[in-house]
Amino acid sequence: MGGDHGCGVVIEGAARALEGNSKITTLYLVGNQADIHAALPKGGFRDHRVRVVHASEVVEMDEKPVVALRKKKDSSIVRAAELVREGKADALVSLGNTGGLFAAATFKVGRIAGVDRGCIATVIPRQSNEFVLLDAGANIECKPFHLAQFAVMGHVYSREVLQRKSPRVGILSIGTEDSKGNELTLEAFRLCKKLDLNFIGNVEGHDLFKDHVDVVVCDGFVGNIVLKTCESLAVGMFSMLKRELMSNTKRKIGAYLARNAFHSIRRRMDPEVYGGAPLLGFNGMVFKAHGSARERAVTSALRVTADAVQYQVNEIIAREIANANAALAAADIALPTPA
Amino acid sequence: MGGDHGCGVVIEGAARALEGNSKITTLYLVGNQADIHAALPKGGFRDHRVRVVHASEVVEMDEKPVVALRKKKDSSIVRAAELVREGKADALVSLGNTGGLFAAATFKVGRIAGVDRGCIATVIPRQSNEFVLLDAGANIECKPFHLAQFAVMGHVYSREVLQRKSPRVGILSIGTEDSKGNELTLEAFRLCKKLDLNFIGNVEGHDLFKDHVDVVVCDGFVGNIVLKTCESLAVGMFSMLKRELMSNTKRKIGAYLARNAFHSIRRRMDPEVYGGAPLLGFNGMVFKAHGSARERAVTSALRVTADAVQYQVNEIIAREIANANAALAAADIALPTPA
Repeated sequence: MGGDHGCGVVIEGAARALEGNSKITTLYLVGNQADIHAALPKGGFRDHRVRVVHASEVVEMDEKPVVALRKKKDSSIVRAAELVREGKADALVSLGNTGGLFAAATFKVGRIAGVDRGCIATVIPRQSNEFVLLDAGANIECKPFHLAQFAVMGHVYSREVLQRKSPRVGILSIGTEDSKGNELTLEAFRLCKKLDLNFIGNVEGHDLFKDHVDVVVCDGFVGNIVLKTCESLAVGMFSMLKRELMSNTKRKIGAYLARNAFHSIRRRMDPEVYGGAPLLGFNGMVFKAHGSARERAVTSALRVTADAVQYQVNEIIAREIANANAALAAADIALPTPA
Repeated sequence: MGGDHGCGVVIEGAARALEGNSKITTLYLVGNQADIHAALPKGGFRDHRVRVVHASEVVEMDEKPVVALRKKKDSSIVRAAELVREGKADALVSLGNTGGLFAAATFKVGRIAGVDRGCIATVIPRQSNEFVLLDAGANIECKPFHLAQFAVMGHVYSREVLQRKSPRVGILSIGTEDSKGNELTLEAFRLCKKLDLNFIGNVEGHDLFKDHVDVVVCDGFVGNIVLKTCESLAVGMFSMLKRELMSNTKRKIGAYLARNAFHSIRRRMDPEVYGGAPLLGFNGMVFKAHGSARERAVTSALRVTADAVQYQVNEIIAREIANANAALAAADIALPTPA
């Protein structure tokens, strides 16, 4: 129910994701039954894997997540999270309020044992591949231990889902020397050194789009700012390019001849296409698709999520987090007591 | 002495800056006399305003700034800072080690009365104009009061040098609502509300390249990461574009016809051209030009700095900082005791 373009787009995207994809055995469409039925193709969904689950409420974009979840017990996000908690679904994909989804993941789906905080991971494209940035906005104030756990989860996601062989993990800081950083990153650096990761140390803003690092770890404040700044700059550069290319006839002709080059970059960089972010650390795959997602983005979100389930990303995270916690405990590093 | 391309480039850039610019009455070239003389045009500088000041040492890029300053008392950066402290020069432009320049500004030039911390401001171009981001890397851990002072200094710089009429000042955060942010930004928000600024509240990464804000305030950790991420993404997008445009003949022809569009954007976005950053809060204008600067960038750094001196930016900062401190004291906000 959460997308900007109504549930028709979501249903169409879901239909395409099911086509030729045998990994998905059941697909629940959770939301207002009347709206869903009105948006179904004529004659309903032919695919027998689809089930409609009614939910009478919706968490709106401007609602405070935790309050909304408590109040709206029959909201689509709560109902969908319950399907995961009850083991009826392995994964949950939403286009709605990110805070609402994160709260539902935390309080309804629940965290993997040993994970102190879940996080939002974002996959950001660059010239020849992509990198994972986490946390991208869920945890504003973090402890070093949280960054170390994000590193482990990002590493698993990069290796299992993005198929990077030995993901290079770095802490986002202001210089590559070991001594550069703030209190949080300096201590997180020390913790990451103890873990079984391909930890390359600090990375700078300069390194992100240069294929130097596959997993970029930071707190949610920094991550959210970096992510949104990149989106803003990319959009700004495209619009600058467009204005320049349209400013005279010669350039217009050139732009027409070269148009596929621009399309190809736009496809690669457009959040609409690569769009979306896995929420990591929960007892079920949780995936946030862009609110502005259209059919293709919904399809891609569902496919990526189904892949992550098949690759048993959460089982592997559980195992590697347990190992990481043990390594830190063995190094006499005090871990937070479980909440 | 600090540029990547030797002092010939600096001297050539300086010569161009002097041409037709009567604001500069004396230009000191501070560095190794033999090197400078070797790089001078045949017959020496014709312009009678040029003086060579010998310094036998150089602070290298990889040296620890504070240690290097103490050790190398006859370094070019120390000698140049002394010219400012002694009132022989109004301003100091350097292409060298940023940390070294900041330390020289702090310990040799000295801070404006009432300014608790100097900062690095960076002017970042966008489609139709530019914005100031500060602090861009000098102060890793900040107190809310520091962010409030950065807001005041950025506001003065934007108004006086970039000629923005009533600069919109925002705090970089993770949502535009007043309640969004971390401990630091939430308290800085409260302080900025008390000041005589066009304070628009929180801004997000999304706002930076959209002409929503003219002065973006953050701590040096976040600012440095944002700045370098933007540079990295811009370079990455250009190289992606180049690869796509060169991938077949039709695109190559298109790119050739439209080439001026790309040049125009590159000129606008290239740090080499807009490049450089004023250091604010010191008893003299201090300007960091990119180490990779070529003649044109040196010329532009010298012109901007001469403008800032003429507009009496530091006198205005001194006045507005005094007013801001008084306003905060009147609001019963505890200020740090002067160092």
